[in-house]
Amino acid sequence: MLWSKDFIPTIKETPQEAESLSHQLMLRAGLVRMLIAGVYSYLPLGLKVLNNIQRIIREELNSCEACELLLSALQPQELWIKSGRDKALGDVMLKFVDRKGRNICLGPTHEEVITDLVKNHIASYKQLPLILYQIQTKFRDEIRPRFGLIRACEFIMKDAYSFDAEESGLDKNYKAMSNAYKRIFKRCGLNILTTEADPGVMGGNVSHEFMSPAQDGEDLVLLCPKCKSAKPLKETSDQSCPKCNVTLEKINTIEVGHIFKLGTKYSLVLGANFIDAKGQQKPIIMGCYGIGVSRLVSAIIAQNHDKDGIVWPKEISPYQVVILPLDTTDRKIMGKAVEVYKELEQGGMKVLFDDRDERAGVKFKDADLLGISLQIIIGRESLKKNTLELKIRRNQKKLIKTKTVILEEIKRYVFG
Amino acid sequence: MLWSKDFIPTIKETPQEAESLSHQLMLRAGLVRMLIAGVYSYLPLGLKVLNNIQRIIREELNSCEACELLLSALQPQELWIKSGRDKALGDVMLKFVDRKGRNICLGPTHEEVITDLVKNHIASYKQLPLILYQIQTKFRDEIRPRFGLIRACEFIMKDAYSFDAEESGLDKNYKAMSNAYKRIFKRCGLNILTTEADPGVMGGNVSHEFMSPAQDGEDLVLLCPKCKSAKPLKETSDQSCPKCNVTLEKINTIEVGHIFKLGTKYSLVLGANFIDAKGQQKPIIMGCYGIGVSRLVSAIIAQNHDKDGIVWPKEISPYQVVILPLDTTDRKIMGKAVEVYKELEQGGMKVLFDDRDERAGVKFKDADLLGISLQIIIGRESLKKNTLELKIRRNQKKLIKTKTVILEEIKRYVFG
Repeated sequence: MLWSKDFIPTIKETPQEAESLSHQLMLRAGLVRMLIAGVYSYLPLGLKVLNNIQRIIREELNSCEACELLLSALQPQELWIKSGRDKALGDVMLKFVDRKGRNICLGPTHEEVITDLVKNHIASYKQLPLILYQIQTKFRDEIRPRFGLIRACEFIMKDAYSFDAEESGLDKNYKAMSNAYKRIFKRCGLNILTTEADPGVMGGNVSHEFMSPAQDGEDLVLLCPKCKSAKPLKETSDQSCPKCNVTLEKINTIEVGHIFKLGTKYSLVLGANFIDAKGQQKPIIMGCYGIGVSRLVSAIIAQNHDKDGIVWPKEISPYQVVILPLDTTDRKIMGKAVEVYKELEQGGMKVLFDDRDERAGVKFKDADLLGISLQIIIGRESLKKNTLELKIRRNQKKLIKTKTVILEEIKRYVFG
Repeated sequence: MLWSKDFIPTIKETPQEAESLSHQLMLRAGLVRMLIAGVYSYLPLGLKVLNNIQRIIREELNSCEACELLLSALQPQELWIKSGRDKALGDVMLKFVDRKGRNICLGPTHEEVITDLVKNHIASYKQLPLILYQIQTKFRDEIRPRFGLIRACEFIMKDAYSFDAEESGLDKNYKAMSNAYKRIFKRCGLNILTTEADPGVMGGNVSHEFMSPAQDGEDLVLLCPKCKSAKPLKETSDQSCPKCNVTLEKINTIEVGHIFKLGTKYSLVLGANFIDAKGQQKPIIMGCYGIGVSRLVSAIIAQNHDKDGIVWPKEISPYQVVILPLDTTDRKIMGKAVEVYKELEQGGMKVLFDDRDERAGVKFKDADLLGISLQIIIGRESLKKNTLELKIRRNQKKLIKTKTVILEEIKRYVFG
């Protein structure tokens, strides 16, 4: 893509309205813009990052034989009254009455809707187990939206639901999902702390949270520096590790995933039953599994940046390579740049071509801010020597070699 | 994918609640389910169809150098008051006040939001032209939702916006978009009538509609049987072609696309200006281009079905091949079926494996209903002769040949 045809409005100065570092970098690199507090537009670069996260999630969940579907944002309040969660959610749920007089809410989550869907189509134990998931936009009436995508009124979630005939089936799916989460977060370039958590309004009796350490994270986790076990900070928390007998460290984190053994909470109240092998009617045993997709963008930046800007993990980088011709009025430079651009794109790589008529310094600063994994710098010096300059964003290493060697190096990095 | 792990609830009987044929087939083939009137859940097969449509749209728009972004569903009513469209849209817009006292609406379209975004980032003619688009969920408070996905309260749209410095630039982008639309609809397996239309509430003075003929379509178009020119039916419509002097035919259609030369309507009221080459401030010249993405599913089915069910166009088919082992208790049949399944998947094809313990008749009927392009039927007879049976859904042709020949034939069909 040519930079001039793209829409990447970078900002030099630190935006004062952004409290957290990840939010500042997101604005500066032109990933998002705020429409109103808690509501964001994803600009092309931000959307590419979101899509990369979503691709990883889909690959890992599909490998667990989970099926993707897409539920609606509009939900009848009636279902929430049935489950008793209309009161539990309270004012956080956005509600209104439509022209037909229907009481509608904007889904903050989908346990009720999916249980209602499945109960009409699952009759026998032969149809179980089943795992369904969606990547979809959710809504919360946040009284105090903060930190950009972290506490927003409109955000993207991946929510998965497992349906089993036996407790042992739920245990197996819960374990499989937990492992898939670990693989997902690793591919997203995140170190994660897993804690046993309070199921809260979701229900059930077992739940785990996936917490991503971040300087500005709102959630405090206690970590044992020795055995690395972690637990959420509560008022009653003991400040030492019961196993290692050392003082626990307080770590700021962002919650990026939460999984729950729901049991029969929703299937009982909504009547989602099946007939077992002996002909008896039983409630379906459920689990639910959430990932904060848009929030992950913040968490990834919080763990992957330096003083110059974002440093995207390999699989998340919105483009894999950015090409910087240092003088767009120089025909030879532009000729070489276009040649390299075409070869990389034909090789199946996503390449951004900085064709802007800007000073070299501006291009270097913007390329570092954007955080694209690899930079190819083409100037008069390198042309004279018939070489190209490759800069690896993460470690700032530079390699000056012939085009053939540089392109081989890039292929190894991207596909290796 | 194994059918037993998927979620494809087919229905034998014609659902009485569905008025149109496309809606009936969508329910019967397990593509969608209604949550409340006008609000649908896309089941796995329906989502796959949606994804295929979206992939085609993205490929064709990206080839026009359009950039994808993603705007929010929540919008401040304030922007609509500025443009004067709050009154024009009226009760169709879903509105509410949030906890912070903000007047919010759920976006039925995004001209205001995108103009507001662009005005903060485009300052000079050097940054133009620019084309931005999104594929996103929109909301309308339909007083009478009908025909499944055709007139719904929550639906998916592709909306694109062009920004130009000159009228000639708008003309060029409008033409490019119109051509992209023709390619998109063709790849979706649709015959389309293009009509000059009334811009209506969108504004501007030139607009064209892309109408998809459909037995149950609500919009009537007058078509000249000789020169094939088309125009929307109005009360004042002349019932003969002015060029050919023959009586026009009334055709039922579904509106699947609409493009508008907006001119400066939105840039003037929202103050989206740029500085031209002479240093003068001018309003940006805009165009907008919509496609009803979820509605396309209905339009495609309306033009691509027979008495047995859906007949998906090649690029839309949710899977490319369905494998039907006729007896799942027969080890030899299942062995051969799994062998073929693995080879096709390794060849990069999307394959559904009907591993259900059902009678051959049920499998045949369901496969025809689902409309997947190719069926491989594996029974005792064909195994004896060391052959496979390939059925092409569209023309019902059958080919009984060795595995090698059949797999070559499938490759040719899918990738050829």
